[in-house]
Amino acid sequence: MNRKSTLHTILSPGLLDLYEVKDSIVVIIDVFRATSTIATALYNGATKIIPVAQVEDCIAIGKKLNAITAGERDGKIIEGLQHGNSPAEYSASFIKGKTLVLTTTNGTKLLHMALESGASEVVTGSFPNLSAVCDHLLAMNKNVILGCSAWKNRFNLEDTLFAGAVINRIKENFIMHCDSSLMAEDMYNMHKQDMYSFIRKTTHWHRLASYGLESDLEYCVTPDVANVLPQYKDGALIVE
Amino acid sequence: MNRKSTLHTILSPGLLDLYEVKDSIVVIIDVFRATSTIATALYNGATKIIPVAQVEDCIAIGKKLNAITAGERDGKIIEGLQHGNSPAEYSASFIKGKTLVLTTTNGTKLLHMALESGASEVVTGSFPNLSAVCDHLLAMNKNVILGCSAWKNRFNLEDTLFAGAVINRIKENFIMHCDSSLMAEDMYNMHKQDMYSFIRKTTHWHRLASYGLESDLEYCVTPDVANVLPQYKDGALIVE
Repeated sequence: MNRKSTLHTILSPGLLDLYEVKDSIVVIIDVFRATSTIATALYNGATKIIPVAQVEDCIAIGKKLNAITAGERDGKIIEGLQHGNSPAEYSASFIKGKTLVLTTTNGTKLLHMALESGASEVVTGSFPNLSAVCDHLLAMNKNVILGCSAWKNRFNLEDTLFAGAVINRIKENFIMHCDSSLMAEDMYNMHKQDMYSFIRKTTHWHRLASYGLESDLEYCVTPDVANVLPQYKDGALIVE
Repeated sequence: MNRKSTLHTILSPGLLDLYEVKDSIVVIIDVFRATSTIATALYNGATKIIPVAQVEDCIAIGKKLNAITAGERDGKIIEGLQHGNSPAEYSASFIKGKTLVLTTTNGTKLLHMALESGASEVVTGSFPNLSAVCDHLLAMNKNVILGCSAWKNRFNLEDTLFAGAVINRIKENFIMHCDSSLMAEDMYNMHKQDMYSFIRKTTHWHRLASYGLESDLEYCVTPDVANVLPQYKDGALIVE
């Protein structure tokens, strides 16, 4: 019988350094909306997605690679970029065969922290690619860290719910001594039947819904509508 | 009509600096067991409790004030100190009229962080003094931060459940745009009827129960059995 690996959930990038990241698979979770958009663009045939923290890097890399640049602040496309953060913008007819340079704050920050901490592998997850993430974690049998990107380091519910959904599927195969993971699964079980109404209570909903993004947010909590596994390799997220 | 004040929950001392602590009341929560023991000792007539982070300070202050010194590491009384962290040790016949110098790690650290961040008032809370904390917060009508002491900065369930119990009682009187608070109340509502069995799932239970402290831990989640309000004034926790 195989040795069981461990599973931990980190509720904020600000808590990452409390955990043994080295040689673990880190799942970057940024449900509203970075990792939902990443899964969608790759599912629809994007060649690769380069996540960057700074707008100027986004512009420079976009120019160099003749790639599509995307990013929002406060619900508007950032000046100098071409597209926004909505998964709805990345249909197959638009994104197939193209490279996307995406600037996000919370998710990109956590991704780079995970790499610097020696993660053996970084993948991204959100409800649209729930099954792909779970299948991969089960197949790999390595220690797992479910990393919630949070919002400016503040705990958020939507990332926690996704961590809970993953735990609910795969926990039997892992050792889990982690109150964050117990809580995440409880919250998922409590709300899996009323997800569309529950997310309307979150602080992030109130922040984004004022920009008219309700259908975006519902899409972001819908399982397996863009079921691929984005893996970070050589500076970009790709599907192998 | 009075202006409503805000309420936030911080899930770890490592996240305190994300919030506006200045001029807020901070409730230090360390259910297993520091703030349960503090409420109990004061309820049973202790004159005051001096919380210190370092063992050497505990010994020095105890000697200077001819006070009782207490603290544990790994379930045993620390060498050089007289008593442990169990609320059961602080009966009225023992503690009445005495000063207790208590060394704890997680709770004391958060208390000093709150003071340094400009909190207008610091009180301590746990299930044994749930009502006293709620009544005070309702009476004061100031911004509130429910501060979970966590365990070495890692999120824990028992402190979160207490935050949820407070929120459940007082939320109507506060503005609450805080996912941590929404989660804490959900977790409390989900488990308030099975608290004794639920706490057996927590990581802290597994850590402490191996030292034979099961009855201690059940006491720590029992509401209002030591219903006083410990307030931090001039370096000590007292009941006014």
